Amino acid sequence: MTNQAAEFWPDLQREERIGFAEVIYCEGKSDEQLAKIAAQLLAHHDNLLATRCSQRQYEVMLTLNNKLKYHASARLAYLHEDKTPRGRGKIAVVSAGTTDVPVAEEAAITAEVMGNQVERHYDIGVAGLHRLLQRQEALMQAEVVVAVAGMEGALPSVLGGLLAAPIIAVPTSVGYGANLQGITALLAMLSSCAPGISVVNVDNGFGAGYAAARINRKRGHEGGGHEGTRRDTKAH
Amino acid sequence: MTNQAAEFWPDLQREERIGFAEVIYCEGKSDEQLAKIAAQLLAHHDNLLATRCSQRQYEVMLTLNNKLKYHASARLAYLHEDKTPRGRGKIAVVSAGTTDVPVAEEAAITAEVMGNQVERHYDIGVAGLHRLLQRQEALMQAEVVVAVAGMEGALPSVLGGLLAAPIIAVPTSVGYGANLQGITALLAMLSSCAPGISVVNVDNGFGAGYAAARINRKRGHEGGGHEGTRRDTKAH
Amino acid sequence: MTNQAAEFWPDLQREERIGFAEVIYCEGKSDEQLAKIAAQLLAHHDNLLATRCSQRQYEVMLTLNNKLKYHASARLAYLHEDKTPRGRGKIAVVSAGTTDVPVAEEAAITAEVMGNQVERHYDIGVAGLHRLLQRQEALMQAEVVVAVAGMEGALPSVLGGLLAAPIIAVPTSVGYGANLQGITALLAMLSSCAPGISVVNVDNGFGAGYAAARINRKRGHEGGGHEGTRRDTKAH
Amino acid sequence: MTNQAAEFWPDLQREERIGFAEVIYCEGKSDEQLAKIAAQLLAHHDNLLATRCSQRQYEVMLTLNNKLKYHASARLAYLHEDKTPRGRGKIAVVSAGTTDVPVAEEAAITAEVMGNQVERHYDIGVAGLHRLLQRQEALMQAEVVVAVAGMEGALPSVLGGLLAAPIIAVPTSVGYGANLQGITALLAMLSSCAPGISVVNVDNGFGAGYAAARINRKRGHEGGGHEGTRRDTKAH
Amino acid sequence: MTNQAAEFWPDLQREERIGFAEVIYCEGKSDEQLAKIAAQLLAHHDNLLATRCSQRQYEVMLTLNNKLKYHASARLAYLHEDKTPRGRGKIAVVSAGTTDVPVAEEAAITAEVMGNQVERHYDIGVAGLHRLLQRQEALMQAEVVVAVAGMEGALPSVLGGLLAAPIIAVPTSVGYGANLQGITALLAMLSSCAPGISVVNVDNGFGAGYAAARINRKRGHEGGGHEGTRRDTKAH
Amino acid sequence: MTNQAAEFWPDLQREERIGFAEVIYCEGKSDEQLAKIAAQLLAHHDNLLATRCSQRQYEVMLTLNNKLKYHASARLAYLHEDKTPRGRGKIAVVSAGTTDVPVAEEAAITAEVMGNQVERHYDIGVAGLHRLLQRQEALMQAEVVVAVAGMEGALPSVLGGLLAAPIIAVPTSVGYGANLQGITALLAMLSSCAPGISVVNVDNGFGAGYAAARINRKRGHEGGGHEGTRRDTKAH
Amino acid sequence: MTNQAAEFWPDLQREERIGFAEVIYCEGKSDEQLAKIAAQLLAHHDNLLATRCSQRQYEVMLTLNNKLKYHASARLAYLHEDKTPRGRGKIAVVSAGTTDVPVAEEAAITAEVMGNQVERHYDIGVAGLHRLLQRQEALMQAEVVVAVAGMEGALPSVLGGLLAAPIIAVPTSVGYGANLQGITALLAMLSSCAPGISVVNVDNGFGAGYAAARINRKRGHEGGGHEGTRRDTKAH
Amino acid sequence: MTNQAAEFWPDLQREERIGFAEVIYCEGKSDEQLAKIAAQLLAHHDNLLATRCSQRQYEVMLTLNNKLKYHASARLAYLHEDKTPRGRGKIAVVSAGTTDVPVAEEAAITAEVMGNQVERHYDIGVAGLHRLLQRQEALMQAEVVVAVAGMEGALPSVLGGLLAAPIIAVPTSVGYGANLQGITALLAMLSSCAPGISVVNVDNGFGAGYAAARINRKRGHEGGGHEGTRRDTKAH
Repeated sequence: MTNQAAEFWPDLQREERIGFAEVIYCEGKSDEQLAKIAAQLLAHHDNLLATRCSQRQYEVMLTLNNKLKYHASARLAYLHEDKTPRGRGKIAVVSAGTTDVPVAEEAAITAEVMGNQVERHYDIGVAGLHRLLQRQEALMQAEVVVAVAGMEGALPSVLGGLLAAPIIAVPTSVGYGANLQGITALLAMLSSCAPGISVVNVDNGFGAGYAAARINRKRGHEGGGHEGTRRDTKAH
Repeated sequence: MTNQAAEFWPDLQREERIGFAEVIYCEGKSDEQLAKIAAQLLAHHDNLLATRCSQRQYEVMLTLNNKLKYHASARLAYLHEDKTPRGRGKIAVVSAGTTDVPVAEEAAITAEVMGNQVERHYDIGVAGLHRLLQRQEALMQAEVVVAVAGMEGALPSVLGGLLAAPIIAVPTSVGYGANLQGITALLAMLSSCAPGISVVNVDNGFGAGYAAARINRKRGHEGGGHEGTRRDTKAH
Repeated sequence: MTNQAAEFWPDLQREERIGFAEVIYCEGKSDEQLAKIAAQLLAHHDNLLATRCSQRQYEVMLTLNNKLKYHASARLAYLHEDKTPRGRGKIAVVSAGTTDVPVAEEAAITAEVMGNQVERHYDIGVAGLHRLLQRQEALMQAEVVVAVAGMEGALPSVLGGLLAAPIIAVPTSVGYGANLQGITALLAMLSSCAPGISVVNVDNGFGAGYAAARINRKRGHEGGGHEGTRRDTKAH
Repeated sequence: MTNQAAEFWPDLQREERIGFAEVIYCEGKSDEQLAKIAAQLLAHHDNLLATRCSQRQYEVMLTLNNKLKYHASARLAYLHEDKTPRGRGKIAVVSAGTTDVPVAEEAAITAEVMGNQVERHYDIGVAGLHRLLQRQEALMQAEVVVAVAGMEGALPSVLGGLLAAPIIAVPTSVGYGANLQGITALLAMLSSCAPGISVVNVDNGFGAGYAAARINRKRGHEGGGHEGTRRDTKAH
Repeated sequence: MTNQAAEFWPDLQREERIGFAEVIYCEGKSDEQLAKIAAQLLAHHDNLLATRCSQRQYEVMLTLNNKLKYHASARLAYLHEDKTPRGRGKIAVVSAGTTDVPVAEEAAITAEVMGNQVERHYDIGVAGLHRLLQRQEALMQAEVVVAVAGMEGALPSVLGGLLAAPIIAVPTSVGYGANLQGITALLAMLSSCAPGISVVNVDNGFGAGYAAARINRKRGHEGGGHEGTRRDTKAH
Repeated sequence: MTNQAAEFWPDLQREERIGFAEVIYCEGKSDEQLAKIAAQLLAHHDNLLATRCSQRQYEVMLTLNNKLKYHASARLAYLHEDKTPRGRGKIAVVSAGTTDVPVAEEAAITAEVMGNQVERHYDIGVAGLHRLLQRQEALMQAEVVVAVAGMEGALPSVLGGLLAAPIIAVPTSVGYGANLQGITALLAMLSSCAPGISVVNVDNGFGAGYAAARINRKRGHEGGGHEGTRRDTKAH
Repeated sequence: MTNQAAEFWPDLQREERIGFAEVIYCEGKSDEQLAKIAAQLLAHHDNLLATRCSQRQYEVMLTLNNKLKYHASARLAYLHEDKTPRGRGKIAVVSAGTTDVPVAEEAAITAEVMGNQVERHYDIGVAGLHRLLQRQEALMQAEVVVAVAGMEGALPSVLGGLLAAPIIAVPTSVGYGANLQGITALLAMLSSCAPGISVVNVDNGFGAGYAAARINRKRGHEGGGHEGTRRDTKAH
Repeated sequence: MTNQAAEFWPDLQREERIGFAEVIYCEGKSDEQLAKIAAQLLAHHDNLLATRCSQRQYEVMLTLNNKLKYHASARLAYLHEDKTPRGRGKIAVVSAGTTDVPVAEEAAITAEVMGNQVERHYDIGVAGLHRLLQRQEALMQAEVVVAVAGMEGALPSVLGGLLAAPIIAVPTSVGYGANLQGITALLAMLSSCAPGISVVNVDNGFGAGYAAARINRKRGHEGGGHEGTRRDTKAH
């Protein structure tokens, strides 16, 4: 680059506006870019999330803070030092199959790092309905449900007819052929016959965990609005 | 047309080869074409099926045989004079919603005209799971199940995990937007997590009823092959 | 139909399970089907929602209850007799352009009939950013935001960076060519760079209003789960 | 994972319900997940099927049972100890080209492990019609036909006009460009001019073999329903 | 239009360059545009082709030359006064079903007006293979074969394995759902397993007839090139 | 609508920011919405553009100002009272065929109303190359070229290799089948082998005319920036 | 494989029927399959074509006949021993860019091995029109033209307006993004405004060369039909 | 290749016609092809651009001229010896995120090598609107703006409402799932609600820089046309 512009410009006020610091999307970033961005964020915040993070990228950031953790299959690097609870209730994260677990874990850890209590219910897809029905009682206690499924993506439709809570559906790219790398599950969830389900991008466990955290977030005064909170910002 | 070729050439031997006479696909045929084809088929067979048939096209054919019936929403014209039973067991036709009924009826009547006993179970979609579970016992008695659903098309996946019978899934174009005129339901059914489900084209109730009839067809000698039968051919 | 099965089977327990009675999807239903379903629902509930309802279908249902209202451009018929408040806070419904208003109204009225207070902010699309920024303060008071936009669907991304509340994005089919009847706006919203936005189907104002109502729903005891409520069921 | 949920939960009752034990979909599973699931299934069943299985994944499972076999190009690991015949007739598996053989073999072995007699007819695609016609007599003896084809997927249409048996069409991803990784063959088969053909996902030999086994399955009493059978479950 | 440019500018030299005068594509043209273009072409040529021509557009042009003919279902208006033979051999036009006949006729008449002898073979689709095989001998006499088919578009693949002649495949929009308005037949034909088939646009009978005429065109001296011919140009 | 929000909120400062007042997109707007928006804009500006405007919508606005003009096939209503020249040079608008003229006219009139001199060159598509080459000299004098083409959209590629000016390519929906309602022309233009061509949406003549006007706009001081101009705003 | 069926069954009569022996499609074939098929074909024919052939697959076949040649970038292995001329005229193979040359070479060599004289004209794409126009005279001498182009695929449209010969258009996957791996060029060529162009699959140089050979093939008696010829079959 | 045709034929007159010499598209070119083309261009021009250039391809060309530079992430090799200014004003290149920088740099360097002054503004995406608004003043000084964004591609819409300059939008393939490798951003930009934005292909920074250079190019005489200039051609 031949002139004045910096290549990146972290949004350090994001936490004040929307309640959580900027999250790093690692894919396509060079090691150098990543290190600079992470260093700036770590200087201002106690928690950190870095998504779509390769093992090598994790190691680059680990040199900046050795408490940084890594979930390899979810490709998530995270620092979870500030553990202030910020949620009103529990977030349930549900997966249809074991192959959907990495995406479910991305959702679950995201919600946890953002201050929520998470309950996992994995491998309860619709082809074995009794497993799902055995969990119905527990799921009815959740404030929000994140439902992760690949292939035909039928799980949220079934849950949507059983539960009153908000349901965030996450299609995964698990499948092949007509599954179109998860686009079919995505379109199917958007076409759900169960009312009031909303959907995030394919494999976007992070987005689902974040959306669940937005929903579950305790307000300063009940019934009040959504002002951003500075609470997990580092005191500098 | 300026020379010798006839525009149509009914396949009068089809019944001997594959067990049922040629079926007329009405869409795009002129009244004149339709009348000629129907007349030829009626001359050789006691039963007749004409799919995607408009009210007007039905009336054209009605002048050829006044016993011809019409199901308006299924757009099916049919003559069902030869009622010889040809099936081993019952065929269950299941629909997710009331809006799927025209396609379900196309399947059901097709199977009936081909000599099968059909049992209908409508409006038992997955968003109200208890309705479906109440029918499980009855559905377990069926030799074949035709499962008709629009929107996200989740019904066959749930049935596939509950039943041992062959399941023919029929996506419908019920829905909008991400449903892509039924293509999403189609792709979702093809991506089903339940094993051994097979699928026909969007809104193809006829194809599903025909496939069910192929499966349910009594053989001359048990364990034997599938030779075509002349039994419902007119004796001329 | 030639045998025993009823064509429809309303899910009268839905309200107990998921907090609101079954909603009628009118498209593709015959007048006769519609009248029967509506009659059954009206016999058990004080409120009613019927989506994608034509003028004529509205008139069919109006003969059953003359208090039924109709929003023509939103194609929504509704009965709103039970006005018990059921929400914790306000739901803001935002539209990018005036052409998106029918979908926004479908969301707003759905949420209202489900017991929520709704605030509308229309025609504040991103090509005139100052209009949107003038509403920022008001939008920060909302418990949930429904953001309706066609064309490129950029509005939710901008809101997602300004607000901490849950955001339900609704793509509309406003546009042409590369907009692909709203599919582009849908995919764009799902690809949003702003974190934690969830999306419903193209033109699915109803689904967005319902999702917002799920999120905003007051619980019997704070922090508790989501048991369905019988409160707007008719006392019979 | 930070709390109580198990990542997988095998559906050990599936055999009783739908006639065959759960099958393992290997793609995307870690070695550890796979070993745990396989161990649980092997503890309860004499036969096992594991699809989309890599050489390495096969070796992981081989340590659990050294009779496990592997078909490398079909990527199928299987244990076929219980050889009780369960079919009424023969299942014919047909392929258009030699490149389609891995998918055809997946279908054939699946059907065999599920208790069926299988007859293979390979490399009889429609561009050399005489080869196909020479097999017509043999194919007429089959109870079910599985037709595997890539490129334009024309084979099932031709068979559908020659045979009375149920035909399960399997598109393969053999081809390039306009073939769209098999989606074209899939859509073409779904659009077949031959009546009553049903279709499974691209390269889904397993699904086709399973569907054929559902169709061919001997009932306890002729004309009776489809209750699951415990017969190949291990006696523990 | 507010300034100097003429809206149309017929390519009166086209015949000299490529052997046939400009053809009018009527869809989207106003009556006034059409009349002006047709008048110019009729002033210079004895033959005329106007494709995708509505009944009303035909009548507009009929006032210019009362010998103009019209094929309603092929939507083709044509003047065929100069009947000089220009082909080396016969062109065979083949259709799979009766519903494909309008497109086949568009091809056939195009080729005839361009100076070729055409032989029609209709309704010989692959689901009734014997009809096709009965025509094999006749088809082997053709210099070029135009094969018209909708649905899965399998006909050209079968012909391609039986015949040595050039085969122009024409997909039609006959079908529904997975047929994608003919795009599936198009992609299937392009993916054909039979070698050396080339394809034109969906429903483009005109293009196929024109391509066949290019192939069949007699050269001034055998083995020579393709110079345009002025022979059917009016002598003015 | 049941509460305080106005449905529309014209962006009256747009002209100051980006150089031209807000333009009305008529499709989907009710007569009432349209009349209110037009009235507000007419109160502040001497020129007006309303795109995708039906005859009836034009008549609604005509009651507000009887100088409003209408181009029926371009579906453009416009008021062109302020004729101050605002361009540096001429804008050439080129069309491939006569059927593309409505879109070309939308571009041309848009540019004219925005204060530019426009030169039209119609019906010079690439299948008659000599017509295009005859215009090359004239086109080299243009400051910007708008190239409108349907079908395969090849025209901009050829122009891009002949001209040094900026080229705005406009795909049209002229064509059928593989043209995919203009999406093919759109994608082809975006894939052009000629460098530095930019593209607008299918049939978006308005957008192309506007983009050309942005490029051609005279600056207050040469080499200076793009501050909006108040010049065509009404003096109120 | 556990029973009698051979995996492959070469179509040794193909040459008699359609004029050239079976061609091997190498992709996805195992070395063992390939060696068996090649050995059978080499035993009966003097010429051989093997497409989509890897270096390694070539080496497998080279052990069978050491005269086998290989064109690495075209991935074509071929034996060209029988050099009997079989064409009436010259086939011109034209490419738009240098990156399209591998596909062009596949077409050219295919045509040569099938007995045709081929003339190559490479790198004459439409963005440098003068290069193309300089070749016009030469191209007018060709009996058939194969036009190979990637990106927007405009070359055949321009040629189609300049030449009277049959034109086979070959889209290539050269390009990125909106080019959709060549699908855009494919669709664009099918939508060409130039009449009578036919198209083969993306990157299908082989198919184009074969189609050109079908067209150019000398008949035994002029004006006669297309009987297959045994001439290049080995005398055994 | 077996006969006379050269594989490439550089367009050495391109600079005279359209103002800049031919640019090399490296992807898919062999080292040998690349070296020959580069040598010819270097013999005639002082500047050179080679896009989609691998490290290895750069090294091949470096042997021809050791002043050749390389931008690795933009995959751009370039020679920038002739630094004559050719632009009227500044070109601003804007990126939404840091991951979009490689494409932005491709645009920026292309414009610079073509004789323009470029100003970079990176990482100012719409989810952090204040960053973008802080740059508004600076951006208003630019003659042309190139706006690079991935994911939902909202940046150009927001800029289009704030700035009067021409805006070239560049979608990038940054994102996943519903982003469809950048196609969603592309379609969204084409559907922008802001008027007069034009768009180039996904990741086509080169095309955007070139388009900006066409717009910004100084004319010999103000208001005059676009004749190509020989100025940066080597004096040979």
